[in-house]
Amino acid sequence: MTGSQLQMILPKFPSCSYLENNPSSKQNILERLEGGEVVLGDGSYCATLEKRGYVKAGHYTPEASVENPEAVEALAYEYARAGADITQTFTYYSRDVGTPDDVNLTCGEINQGACNIAKKIAKEKGTIVAGGIVQTGVFSTKRDKKEVHEELREGLEVLIQNDIDLIIVEFFGNIIEMEWAIELALSYNKPVAATMCIGPKGDTDGVQPEECAVRMARAGAHIIGTNCKFDPFISLETMRRMKAGLDAENLHPYLMCQPLGFRTPDVNHFGGFHLPEFPFAMEPRQITRIEAAQFAREAYHLGIRVIGGCCGIESHHIRAMAEELAVERGGLPEGSRKSDHDLSTLKKKGDMGRDEFKMKGSKEYWQSLIPCTGRPLSSALNRTMNPEVVDRSVLN
Amino acid sequence: MTGSQLQMILPKFPSCSYLENNPSSKQNILERLEGGEVVLGDGSYCATLEKRGYVKAGHYTPEASVENPEAVEALAYEYARAGADITQTFTYYSRDVGTPDDVNLTCGEINQGACNIAKKIAKEKGTIVAGGIVQTGVFSTKRDKKEVHEELREGLEVLIQNDIDLIIVEFFGNIIEMEWAIELALSYNKPVAATMCIGPKGDTDGVQPEECAVRMARAGAHIIGTNCKFDPFISLETMRRMKAGLDAENLHPYLMCQPLGFRTPDVNHFGGFHLPEFPFAMEPRQITRIEAAQFAREAYHLGIRVIGGCCGIESHHIRAMAEELAVERGGLPEGSRKSDHDLSTLKKKGDMGRDEFKMKGSKEYWQSLIPCTGRPLSSALNRTMNPEVVDRSVLN
Amino acid sequence: MTGSQLQMILPKFPSCSYLENNPSSKQNILERLEGGEVVLGDGSYCATLEKRGYVKAGHYTPEASVENPEAVEALAYEYARAGADITQTFTYYSRDVGTPDDVNLTCGEINQGACNIAKKIAKEKGTIVAGGIVQTGVFSTKRDKKEVHEELREGLEVLIQNDIDLIIVEFFGNIIEMEWAIELALSYNKPVAATMCIGPKGDTDGVQPEECAVRMARAGAHIIGTNCKFDPFISLETMRRMKAGLDAENLHPYLMCQPLGFRTPDVNHFGGFHLPEFPFAMEPRQITRIEAAQFAREAYHLGIRVIGGCCGIESHHIRAMAEELAVERGGLPEGSRKSDHDLSTLKKKGDMGRDEFKMKGSKEYWQSLIPCTGRPLSSALNRTMNPEVVDRSVLN
Amino acid sequence: MTGSQLQMILPKFPSCSYLENNPSSKQNILERLEGGEVVLGDGSYCATLEKRGYVKAGHYTPEASVENPEAVEALAYEYARAGADITQTFTYYSRDVGTPDDVNLTCGEINQGACNIAKKIAKEKGTIVAGGIVQTGVFSTKRDKKEVHEELREGLEVLIQNDIDLIIVEFFGNIIEMEWAIELALSYNKPVAATMCIGPKGDTDGVQPEECAVRMARAGAHIIGTNCKFDPFISLETMRRMKAGLDAENLHPYLMCQPLGFRTPDVNHFGGFHLPEFPFAMEPRQITRIEAAQFAREAYHLGIRVIGGCCGIESHHIRAMAEELAVERGGLPEGSRKSDHDLSTLKKKGDMGRDEFKMKGSKEYWQSLIPCTGRPLSSALNRTMNPEVVDRSVLN
Repeated sequence: MTGSQLQMILPKFPSCSYLENNPSSKQNILERLEGGEVVLGDGSYCATLEKRGYVKAGHYTPEASVENPEAVEALAYEYARAGADITQTFTYYSRDVGTPDDVNLTCGEINQGACNIAKKIAKEKGTIVAGGIVQTGVFSTKRDKKEVHEELREGLEVLIQNDIDLIIVEFFGNIIEMEWAIELALSYNKPVAATMCIGPKGDTDGVQPEECAVRMARAGAHIIGTNCKFDPFISLETMRRMKAGLDAENLHPYLMCQPLGFRTPDVNHFGGFHLPEFPFAMEPRQITRIEAAQFAREAYHLGIRVIGGCCGIESHHIRAMAEELAVERGGLPEGSRKSDHDLSTLKKKGDMGRDEFKMKGSKEYWQSLIPCTGRPLSSALNRTMNPEVVDRSVLN
Repeated sequence: MTGSQLQMILPKFPSCSYLENNPSSKQNILERLEGGEVVLGDGSYCATLEKRGYVKAGHYTPEASVENPEAVEALAYEYARAGADITQTFTYYSRDVGTPDDVNLTCGEINQGACNIAKKIAKEKGTIVAGGIVQTGVFSTKRDKKEVHEELREGLEVLIQNDIDLIIVEFFGNIIEMEWAIELALSYNKPVAATMCIGPKGDTDGVQPEECAVRMARAGAHIIGTNCKFDPFISLETMRRMKAGLDAENLHPYLMCQPLGFRTPDVNHFGGFHLPEFPFAMEPRQITRIEAAQFAREAYHLGIRVIGGCCGIESHHIRAMAEELAVERGGLPEGSRKSDHDLSTLKKKGDMGRDEFKMKGSKEYWQSLIPCTGRPLSSALNRTMNPEVVDRSVLN
Repeated sequence: MTGSQLQMILPKFPSCSYLENNPSSKQNILERLEGGEVVLGDGSYCATLEKRGYVKAGHYTPEASVENPEAVEALAYEYARAGADITQTFTYYSRDVGTPDDVNLTCGEINQGACNIAKKIAKEKGTIVAGGIVQTGVFSTKRDKKEVHEELREGLEVLIQNDIDLIIVEFFGNIIEMEWAIELALSYNKPVAATMCIGPKGDTDGVQPEECAVRMARAGAHIIGTNCKFDPFISLETMRRMKAGLDAENLHPYLMCQPLGFRTPDVNHFGGFHLPEFPFAMEPRQITRIEAAQFAREAYHLGIRVIGGCCGIESHHIRAMAEELAVERGGLPEGSRKSDHDLSTLKKKGDMGRDEFKMKGSKEYWQSLIPCTGRPLSSALNRTMNPEVVDRSVLN
Repeated sequence: MTGSQLQMILPKFPSCSYLENNPSSKQNILERLEGGEVVLGDGSYCATLEKRGYVKAGHYTPEASVENPEAVEALAYEYARAGADITQTFTYYSRDVGTPDDVNLTCGEINQGACNIAKKIAKEKGTIVAGGIVQTGVFSTKRDKKEVHEELREGLEVLIQNDIDLIIVEFFGNIIEMEWAIELALSYNKPVAATMCIGPKGDTDGVQPEECAVRMARAGAHIIGTNCKFDPFISLETMRRMKAGLDAENLHPYLMCQPLGFRTPDVNHFGGFHLPEFPFAMEPRQITRIEAAQFAREAYHLGIRVIGGCCGIESHHIRAMAEELAVERGGLPEGSRKSDHDLSTLKKKGDMGRDEFKMKGSKEYWQSLIPCTGRPLSSALNRTMNPEVVDRSVLN
C-alpha cells in the first residue's frame, strides 16, 4: 500500500488524549478483547538486554531478573510507557539451555525474580501480567506427551503460584506439541494465548498455517497466532493464511502476532536465527518505527487484536504501534508525551526554513520513504539462505 | 583490511582478566593518557533516550535528567559497565533550542540534575565526569567573540560548580568559534578536549581538517579530534588528515574521536542529520558491534587514545570497543561477563553440531562478514545527498 | 544450487568436438526431439536490432527484414554460429501495431523478406526455419473465435507459402485464445510449438500454469511451454508447475522455454514490460552468460528440450547455453572456436602470474560469483511493482 | 545534476533535421574541431565482437578483420549510422598478446584487413578513418625509448601505408611512454590524438592527471584525454583535472574522452579489468543509453569535443550521445530514424491510456530514473576492490 493510499483510509493525527492507567479493571484480557479493544504486547527482553549488557548471547537465559533486576524493570517500564498493555515475565524455561557457568541461581529463583518485576510494573502501570512456556527439548527427541507435559508443568508452576493474568504458549514449531501444551495450559483456568514460530511454509512437519490455526483453535486456545523467527510482513502473510483457514471452518478465536523486529525476506522456512548475521550483525535488518506502525496498521486491518513484538522489537517500535492505533485504542500512550507523534516539531523546523526538515513534518513523507542502507558492499538478501532453485526463482 | 590480514596483526582473544574499578585514582584523564592508557568515552544519550521514550525528537533537550533521572542513570550505568571510562553529563546547553512546551524546568535545574547523575555513576564506577559545551547560535548570525563567550560561560558555569573532571568543547563546526571556546574553557584550569563536527571537506568556512587540528592544538586544547555528524570510517579519514597536519607542524596533542553510530558514506559535507532517513528511519544504517570494534582498532592504530561515540553508538558498541582493545587496556570491562566476548559460546554451539553456528565461533568469520540489509527495495546511497557531478563521479 | 553442488553433478569441460552442420537431415524438429536431442532456439531480434539501430522502439515492427536485410541476416547468422538449431523468421504480425509512419511496406512484403533471410541461413547453417504467430488484438476486445482465426490466418499464410519447418504459436496470454490458435496451426500439418507469456500466477483469466499446460497438450500442440515477459528463473518455476500438471494427467508433450534475458524478480503477474526501466534502462537487469548457462542446465534437468530466449537474450547467451549442454548435444557450436569455452585462456593468464585472473580459469569461480551492480544509488527491486501487501510480505 | 536541473539548462527535443553525410569534406578532424564541431568517436570493437562470437575472450585479437570481415563491417556501419564521425580500424597491435593458436594470419594481414573495412565505411558514410597504437610490452620491462619506438613503428606502418586520417595514441598508462609515442606519431604529419587509460589517481608512476595532460600537450598532441579502463563519470573527473592542469598552464589542446561503458565506481586505481566480474559477468554494470547521453552532455559542458567510447559502449550508446548533442551537431544521426529519439512513440502509447507508459514520454522521466538492478543477492560495490582503509572510508 502506498503512502497516498494509506492517507485515504487513515485518519491523520487525530487529537488524542493521553491514556490514563486504570489498574483496577484492566487485567482480564479476554474481557478487553470482547469489548473490542486492541491490546498491545511488549517487545523483546532477551535481545534488547543482551545489547544492554545483562544477558549473555548464546545462552540467552534470564538470570538478569535476579542479578540486575533494575535493568529488567527499566525495560519493562519502557514498554509500559510506550503503550504495551501486557508485561511479560522475563522467564525463559528450558531444561536444555543452561545458564552461563558463573550463574548459581535455580530456575525457580530466576522465575520468581521475573514475576516480582512484572507484578511491580503491573501494579504501577495497570498492565496484564503474562507468562510464557515454550517448546521443549524432549519433544524433538521423542514425541512423548507425558514427558512434554512434565517439562512444561515445571515452567508453568511458578507462573501459577504468582497468579499471572495470561498464559502464553509460544515459540512452538510443531502443532502436535502445541496441542499438548494448550491442553495443559487450559487446565489452570487462565486465559491462554497460543503462538507458533512458523512462517508461510508451515510447521516442522510441513503442516500448513491454515491447519495449524484450526487445530490451535480446536484445542481450545482463546487467542492464536505467531511469534518470533519471521519478519513482520512475512508473519502477516502467515497470519493471513491462518485466518483463511479459520474462516473456512467458521472458527473465530482472537488473533495475535508478535514478529521479529528485523527484515528477513530471505529466511525461507528456517527463520531469522539461521541468518549469517545472527546474532552480532543484525542492525542493518532492524525495522524502523515507520515500518512498525505499518505492521500494526496492517495487522489491525487483518483483524489481529493482540499486537506486539519479539526479538528486535524495542520500545520505540511499540510506541509507534500505539500511536498508529491511537484512535482505535482511545488515546496515546504516556510515552508519546516525549515523542513527536504528530510530527509537529519536525514540521515546525521545516517551516522555520531548515531545508533538511522540509517535507519531514508529514506522515506521507515517512510512509513513502524507502530507507537507504548506507552499505554499498552489502547485498539485500543472503545467498546462503536460498539454496534451492525453487526459492531462487522467486527471490533472486 | 581483510579478516585474514587483521588476524596477522591482532592478538586473538587473549585471556584477559576483568578490570576492577579503582575510583580513587582515575579521574585525571591527562595523567592517564600520559601513562599510555586508551581511554574510552561513552555513547549517545539523546538519540538512545529518544528511542527509550525520555527525550523528544526534534527538541532533543535533556530534561530527562530531572524528569526521569533513573532512565538517564540506567544508560550511564550501561556505558560504564560496557567499559566507558568517561561519564558525560547529559547537559545540552543552547539558548536556541527550547525544551518542549510542557517542560517547566530551568536550564540550571536540568544541568544540575545531569551532574548529579554523572557524579553518582563516577562514584560507583570510578569514571571521569566530563561536561560539554557546544557551538552557539549567536556565532552563526554575528561572529562576536564577547557574545559567544557569554553564551558558553552560562553553559560552563554549572559544570564548574560541580567540579567536573574534563571539559569537552564539542560539536563545533567552525574553527574560529572553536578557538574562542578553547580559550574560555582553558580559563577554568581543567583538562580541555576539543572536538569538531567536521568531515574530510573541512569546517563551515572550508578550512581543511589539517589546519583545524593545528589551530585547536595551538589554541591550547589538551585533546583534539572530531565528534558526531559523520560515520566512523569517514571520521577516521578526517582524523588521519588532522594527524597529518599536526605531524607536519610537530604538534602532538592527544587525539579523540566520537563519531556517529551510522554508516553515512553519502553525506558529503552536510553530515548525517541531513539524510532523508533522519531521524525516524536510521536503523538500516546503524553500525554493528563488529564494525564498532573495527573502528576502535583502526582508531588505536592511528594513534587516537580517547575513543567513544556519538548518536547511534549504544552500549554494545562501547563494549565491543573495550573488548577489541582489552589487551591494550589491561582487561575486559565488567559487562563482558555477560557478553560472548571470546565467541566461546557460539563456538560450543557450532561444535555441538548446530549447523547455523558453524564458523560463527571465530573472530575471522565476523570480521569478514558483510551484513545483508534484508531490504531489496532500498538503495545503498541516497541520491539526494550527491547533487554535484564531482560527487556522483566518485560515489554513483 | 551452489557452485560446489553443481560441480558434483556436472561434467567439467568435456573435450568436445565442434558440431558440423548437416543441412540435409536436420529440419524435422519432432524427429530430432524423438531421437533425444536438445534443440536450441535463437534469441531476440526486436530488442537486439533496436539497440543496433534497425528497429524503432515503441513500434517494434520488423520492416528491417526489407529495409536492412543484411543487419537481420547478420544477427540470424550470429545465433546459428552460437549454436541455435532454429532460425525464427523476423515476422511479427499484429494488426494493431502499425509500422512507423515513414515505412511504406505491406505486411506481406516484410514477412516475405523475413522468410527469405531465415531460409538463407537455414540453407547455409542447416537450421530449422520457424515462423511465429502471436496473440491477436481482437481477442482482448471480443472473444470471437472466427475473428481470431481470421487474423491469425493472415499471419500464417506467408509462413506456409514459404514452407517453414515449424509453427510457433507464441506470446499468448490467455489459454482460450491459445487453444483456438493451436487448432488453426495444426490444420497446416506442420509441427506446432505453443508457448504462453505467463508467469507462476497464470493467464489473463487466472488459469493456473498446470491447467494451461494440460489444455495446450490436449489441444494437440507437439511442444509446449512459455516465452517472453518473465525472467529465466521465474519462467522455470512456471515450467515446473506446467510439468507437474502434465505429469498428473500423464501427458508428455515436448517442453520449451524461451524467457526474457533480464532479471525481473519484481514483475509480479504483469511481466517485465511494465517495469519502469523498460525499454531504455534495462541494462543492469540483463543476465550474464553464466546465468544463461545455469538457466540451460536447470531447464535441461527439468526435462525441457527446446531451450532458447526472447528479448534480452543475445548470441553470447545462446552460445553459453550450447556450451553448457555440449555433452548432451554431442559437441560445441561453431562459435565456440572464438569463445574461451573451457576457460583455458583465462587460466593461462592466471597461471602466468596475472593476479587479476587468478581463480578465473575455473567454472566454479564463475558459477559461484554474484556479480556486483556498480550502482550504489540503485535498489534491487522496484517498489512500484509490489503494490499489494501480499506481495510486499514476500519480496520486501 | 538532477533531472529538473538539467531541464533548465537543456533544450528539449529541438526539431532537428537528419544529418546528411558529406564524404568529400569531412576527413580533417582538426579543421572540423577548429570550426567548432563536436566530433563523435565510435564504441567498442573487441568487447562487442567477443559477445557476437568473432573475437576470443582472453586474447582479444582482431583476426576477425580477415576471418569475418562482414561482421566487423556490420559493427562499423552500426556506429556510423548511430552518429560516429570516426571509424577506427580494428587493429590492435601488441607483440605480447598472441592470436589464438588456430589463427595463421600475420599481424600485417590482419591490420590491412582492418584498414580495408574502415576505408570502405569511410567512403560510404564520410567518416574519419582513425588508427591506434597502444602501450608496448617492452616499456614495462625496460624503459628504452629506442625499443619502444621500434615496436610502435611496426604498428604505425600499415596505418600510414593506408593513409589514415587520424592517429590515436591510446591506452597508455605511463606519461613517459606516452611522450615518446606522441613524438613518434607526430613524425608522420598526421593529426595526433593522445589518450591515457588513467583515472583520478594518475599514471603508473603516480603522476597526477593535471601533469599528464600538460606533458601530453607540450609533447605536441593535437587532441588529448583519456580512454578505457574507467567508467564514464570517473573518467570525466579525470578529464576535469586534466583540464584544470592545462588551464593553469594556459594550454588549450582539444579534449577527448572514450570511457568504458560500465559503471565501475569501485575500481580504484586498477581499472575495470581487475573487477571480479570481468570479463564474463559485466552486464549488470553496463550503462544505459540514458547514462550515455548524460555523459555526453557533461563532457560537452566540460569542453570536450571528441566524445566516444571504449569497451562496453555499443551503438545505441553512441546514438544516444548523438541525439543528446543534436543541436550542437546540427542534426540527428541517420540511425535516429529508427529510434524514439523524441520519445513521441512512448508518449503516444501513454496518451492512449496504457498505464505502464504513462510518464515515459518525457525526457525528465528518464533522466531522473534510477534503474533497479533486479538482483537482491548482488551488492553495489565489490569489497575486494577496496582493500585499504582510506578507500573504505569513502566508499563503504
